[in-house]
This record gives sequence, C-alpha cells and structure tokens, in this order.
Amino acid sequence: MLAEIITIGDEILIGQIVDTNSAWMAQKLNQQGIRIKQISSVSDDQQHILNALAEAASRADIIFITGGLGPTKDDITKQTLAKYFNVKLVINDDALNNVLNIFKRYNRPMLDVNRKQAEVPENCEVILNNNGTAPGMWFNVDGKIYVSMPGVPFEMMYMMEDTVIPKLKTVLKLPVIIHKTILTVGEGESYLAERIADIENDLPPNIKLAYLPKMGQVRLRLSAYSDGSELLQGKLDQFAARIVERVGQNVVAQEDIPLEKVVLNYMQERGLTLSAAESCTGGYIAHLLTQHPGSSAVFWGSAVTYDNSIKENIIGVKHQTLKDFGAVSEQTAREMAEGVLHRFKTSYSIAVTGIAGPDGGSEDKPVGTVWVAVANTTKTVSKKFTFGNKRMQNIERSAVAAFFMLITLLKES
Amino acid sequence: MLAEIITIGDEILIGQIVDTNSAWMAQKLNQQGIRIKQISSVSDDQQHILNALAEAASRADIIFITGGLGPTKDDITKQTLAKYFNVKLVINDDALNNVLNIFKRYNRPMLDVNRKQAEVPENCEVILNNNGTAPGMWFNVDGKIYVSMPGVPFEMMYMMEDTVIPKLKTVLKLPVIIHKTILTVGEGESYLAERIADIENDLPPNIKLAYLPKMGQVRLRLSAYSDGSELLQGKLDQFAARIVERVGQNVVAQEDIPLEKVVLNYMQERGLTLSAAESCTGGYIAHLLTQHPGSSAVFWGSAVTYDNSIKENIIGVKHQTLKDFGAVSEQTAREMAEGVLHRFKTSYSIAVTGIAGPDGGSEDKPVGTVWVAVANTTKTVSKKFTFGNKRMQNIERSAVAAFFMLITLLKES
Repeated sequence: MLAEIITIGDEILIGQIVDTNSAWMAQKLNQQGIRIKQISSVSDDQQHILNALAEAASRADIIFITGGLGPTKDDITKQTLAKYFNVKLVINDDALNNVLNIFKRYNRPMLDVNRKQAEVPENCEVILNNNGTAPGMWFNVDGKIYVSMPGVPFEMMYMMEDTVIPKLKTVLKLPVIIHKTILTVGEGESYLAERIADIENDLPPNIKLAYLPKMGQVRLRLSAYSDGSELLQGKLDQFAARIVERVGQNVVAQEDIPLEKVVLNYMQERGLTLSAAESCTGGYIAHLLTQHPGSSAVFWGSAVTYDNSIKENIIGVKHQTLKDFGAVSEQTAREMAEGVLHRFKTSYSIAVTGIAGPDGGSEDKPVGTVWVAVANTTKTVSKKFTFGNKRMQNIERSAVAAFFMLITLLKES
Repeated sequence: MLAEIITIGDEILIGQIVDTNSAWMAQKLNQQGIRIKQISSVSDDQQHILNALAEAASRADIIFITGGLGPTKDDITKQTLAKYFNVKLVINDDALNNVLNIFKRYNRPMLDVNRKQAEVPENCEVILNNNGTAPGMWFNVDGKIYVSMPGVPFEMMYMMEDTVIPKLKTVLKLPVIIHKTILTVGEGESYLAERIADIENDLPPNIKLAYLPKMGQVRLRLSAYSDGSELLQGKLDQFAARIVERVGQNVVAQEDIPLEKVVLNYMQERGLTLSAAESCTGGYIAHLLTQHPGSSAVFWGSAVTYDNSIKENIIGVKHQTLKDFGAVSEQTAREMAEGVLHRFKTSYSIAVTGIAGPDGGSEDKPVGTVWVAVANTTKTVSKKFTFGNKRMQNIERSAVAAFFMLITLLKES
C-alpha cells in the first residue's frame, strides 16, 4: 500500500521550521505496512497545491496532507480541497461544537474567523480535533483516500493515533507486519552488522532486519511480513534471541522504547530512585526522564549546576577540587555524583560535566570533552568521553552515555 | 528566482531521519532571494528520481539535489543524473585526488568502491568536498542549473557556503527579498489577525504577512519582494512598527529568535543572572536555555525539584506550605522562586509547579493546572494557568508562560 505526504506551508519552504511531522507520520505508517512513496512540501498557493494533489494521487493510494488549516487568510487548504473535489464548503455541526467548547473552556469570545474553522468540504468525513479548533478531514474519492490534518504537531499526532490509523486498519486490507526492536548502545552500525552477519544471512525472505542508528544508539529492527501465518511471532522471537545472545553486552532493551524509559522501567520495578547533577547537559537528562508519565516514582530531581558556585553550594563539590582539577574533570564528576546522591537522598545518581562548545575548549580539554559519573551508595564509576564539536550533539551524546553507564551499574548491582 | 530541493534516500521516507537539510538550505537561499517552490523527498529508485527531476525542472530554474552519493549499492544519484542528461560517467581527476588524500590522511586502504566516488557525469563541473569523499556536481543544461550534493549535513553545508552560494551570486541576477519577524506571546493567531486586520489590508502587493503559531507564541513575519528598490527596508520597518504599536504588550522580540534567546539576550545586555526551580517542567526550561552557546553568562542553574523532599531540602520550600497548600499552589510556586533566587544567588528566578498529566489531577486541581512564579530581590509575581491534558504540551506551554512572565517582570524593572 503506497502513500504520499504533502505538507503545506510557506514556513517550511523558507526554512523557518523543520518538517518533523513527515518523519513521525512515515514511521507510524510504516509500522502498519504503508510505504511512503514521496514527501512533498508545497507553498500556500492554490494552483501549486492542486497540482501536488493530482501528482500524488497519480502515484499513491493514500494522500496525507498537513498544514494550512488555520483561521487566517494565508491558510487555504480547505478551499483548495473543495476546489479539487469540486464541492462546496459547509459548516459541520460536530466541528462547530468542538470550536464552541474550546472557546467556552477558555472563556474567550468567539470571533467570526473561528466559526469558519468549522467549515469543511461537503464530501468529507470530519476527524475531530481534541487539541485545537481546526477539524481534520477524511475523503474517499475515486478509490483514493485523502486525509487532511493540521500542521501543529500535537494536533496531527493525536488525530493520527486516535482516529486515522485505527480507521485505516478497518478500511484497508493491510498486510500483517510485526516488528521486534532490539535497542543497543555503545557500538556502531558496521560493527554490529559484522558481528551478526551470519544471523542476518539466515533470515527468511519475509523477515527483514534494519539498522537504525541514532546518537550513539543503534536500533536493530526485525520486521516480519505475512498474510496471516501464526508462526511469525515465534520465528521473529527466535532470531531476536540469537542476536541478543551475540551482542548482549550492548543490548539495553528488547522493545522499541527510548533509552531513558529503559532506565525508568528497570528502576521502578526494583523500587530504586534516581537523581542527577548536570553541568554541560544543562537539564536535558532531567527533561528526557520527566517527559514520561509516572517518572516521578523513580526520578526525584536534578541539580542543573551550570555555574561553579551552584556546584559547590547545592551539591557540595569541594572548592579545592574545582580549583585544582577544574569543572570538567574526573574528580568533579565524581563529587557531583556523590554529592547529589547524598543531598537528594536517592539510591542512584548520574553526573555529567563537560565542554559542550562551540567555545570553552582548550588544547588540554577540547570542545566535546565530557566526564560522566554514576553512583550508588557503595560505588562510583566515572568515564571520559571525547565527542565532536557540535553543541547539541554533545549534549545528546552525553545523555546517552550517562544512561548507558547507569544501566551497566544497575545490572552489576 | 525559483528553486526546488529534491532529497533522495529511503531513510527519510521510512521516517528514520528528519530532513533538516532542506530547512537549512531554504533559509540560506531565501536570504539570497532564491525562493523554494517545492521540497520533494523521493526514494532511492531510478525512475522515481528521473520523474522528480523532470517535474522540478518544469517548475523551477535551479534544482538542488541532496543524498544518494555514498559508495554503497543503494546510492544511485550519479548514475541517474548521467541517464537524465544522457551522458557518460567519467573519473574526475580533482575528485580522485580528494579521495586519495582523504585515505592517505586516515591511513586506510582504498577500495575499488572508493575510487568510484570520483566518477561523475561528464557534463558536470565538480564541487570539491572538503569534508568527505563524495564530490558535489554543478550542471547547467538548457538554461536550468542543477546542483547535486551529499546528504551528510555538514558536507552539504560547507559546499553550499564555500562554493554553491558564491557561484550562484556570480551567475544569477538575484532579486531582493527581506524578512522581518515579530515574536508575540500570550494571544492566539485569530485574535492578532483581527487586531491588525486594517494594517494587513494596507500592505502593498509586494509585502506579505504570515502568521506562524507555535505553542502559545505567534510569529508575525513580513516578507518584502523587490527587483531592487531601496525603499523596501523602510516600508517593511514602517509596517512592522505599526503592528508593534498595535499589539505591543504581546511583542517580545522584533527578530526571528527563540523565546528563551530573547530572555538570554536581554539579561546578558544588562548583566543579570537567572536561576530556575522546576517541578512539572522537569528540566525543560534549563534545557531550552542551555541549548544556546554562551548561556552560562546568564543562566546559573536550575533545581529540578520533582520530589517534594527536594523542594524542601534544596530550595527551602517550607514543609508546612507543602502540607497546607500542596505542591501545586501559589504559595509553593512563590517559595520555590524566592528559595532558588536566594540559594542560587541570582538576580532573577523562575519557578514552575503543576500537574503535567496524564495522571495526578483532582477535581480541584485538574491535569494542566500550573502555577508559575517569577522573582527578583524586590518582587515576586505569580500566576495560575490552566492548560490541557497533554503532558508534553503542558510542559512546553508552562515554559513559554514562564519566559513571558519573566520578560514582563524584566521590562517593568
């Protein structure tokens, strides 16, 4: 089953925003066996959108459209879809009620432009927007499905998960695809490929292995395709088990969850608690953890000790240590981990101190030098990393390294 | 001058990577007056690429192509371009020398596939790659320019800045496009549109206004197009000034920068320092600030006080306050702001405490209830917000609200 994504909006074409919607949608659709043939970003221009729709419909069975559904003049997706299908715009009662409820909830006066948000082409089925005023739209015309959704990521994501994907599963005869993901940390794609080459060669034609590298992690995703065989899951599990046996020291999870969620799950099951002391990661580790509902059961807090005075006053790094070895040093990292463990009274802690860049490096400690320490009440482990010269990349890789060290310590204990 | 971008690679279409190249290229090209008409992501499939090239050439004058230049079998961009132009592939001496030098530098044996990297369609001009083995290619055929570059972001970026953009400036007569962005917080797109409707109506045909909403913020972007009038900037500034006068209380910046960067710039100019106490935002505020190089001049640190014990021990919220009013309360928010201000010794502070969800709400304090407090040594301001029921959205909106309250307090002081 082939699909295309059309994202509408000048803000993408002038580079003001990066189109993250398409990758998210492509991932979700792939899991359902729907392949994306092309992603096209086009401007808020009627003729251009009409051409893009016609071109996409000539190549694919399902066309996903995001963007251009706001209340202002530059948003013309609805009018354009009405023209494309040669139908009128009509007020949809459900969509109107949704708009009214939102304005009631926030106790704000409703304007005429907001009422217009409930207008949709008369041949569509409305997809309710639980997170905003613009309705989504589902069209089924000449054997092709068109789904139009807002460009605001949250609104699109909830529509996809709550309505669009379940509806696609009902309406289409999708092949059975099951996935099994093995999350590894600490080795590159080509090393892993070499280590498991023989296992990969043994895979039957209906099981495929993909290497999905991302920031110091590689996801090994096994996907099995079938028209209904019951043995599929068993076969998939067998191959997964062989891979895990081979590269086990790098495997942190056998499900497709983020690395920090591996930490949270493992610690929660064992009633353990975690704190962090973050210098160069600047709150990123805490943010990763606290994104997840229920993280408060494990994660008690972080001291983002950007300034040295905070390292001393809040988590008790010795003044002399900072003076003798500097903020980016093994000694400081260890005192940070032990200090926050003690003061936050948790069973485990993570500490990161480094030079994220682009400035602040020296010959001795170039940009990308990062010390990570992890501790529990009986043991502290520290390690030095030398990453690159990209700030955000250094922050992300430091977090990955810290979580991997923590998982290793947890498993030893 | 119209251009299109074609990104080639299955990894984009399965959602494994987000295409950040296109936004970067679009920004750089826009600054030179080159408008991007369409961005298309296509698969590593010859016929699909050939079609995309022909379609792009029918709409635009310049076609940028990234990706598919690696040494492995699935990379077919060069062969496809040779077929598209109906020419042969030949070894280019400069490209070959570049490959040889790279292998010499890293002291690695050169394989046949690496030698093949120096092969290019015979009708191209080679663009040297200072950061990798794959050469870029510049074609000028039938009045259209085609530029093919690697998909690796930094290889593409250096080629664009060092060679492609300077060459475009020499070869083409480019129009002038200038943008002016006004960043607003606290009111929705439709409210703003109604408030400035008359100003928008007064815009001449060559100045366009776009509303770019994002999480409690709306960017108003004015874009002016001209073939060389010197009055353009003046006109643009006049309209921007009218808008700012009209909706000034919501305007936080007159340049296109992230909200937290507005805070950092404003405080750095005045020698002020900032700390944060974060409960429901869980480090996100600290992360936003510390993403930016040089943030350490302003931002000293954050206490991510997820657990109540940390609120008491680390930033001195009174046990009685937590007992009497709860963690999500005005009293706690204020004590968090004042506590972190005092203990971290900064001139300003931010505190956020709320129920991010999806669990933890009550009738009294539903999910989405957030208290924000901002403080300096003489004043503490607090405010309650009622956001929705989506965790990540509540975290992001809390951060935006906190930064806006801080900016308001800063401007009063």
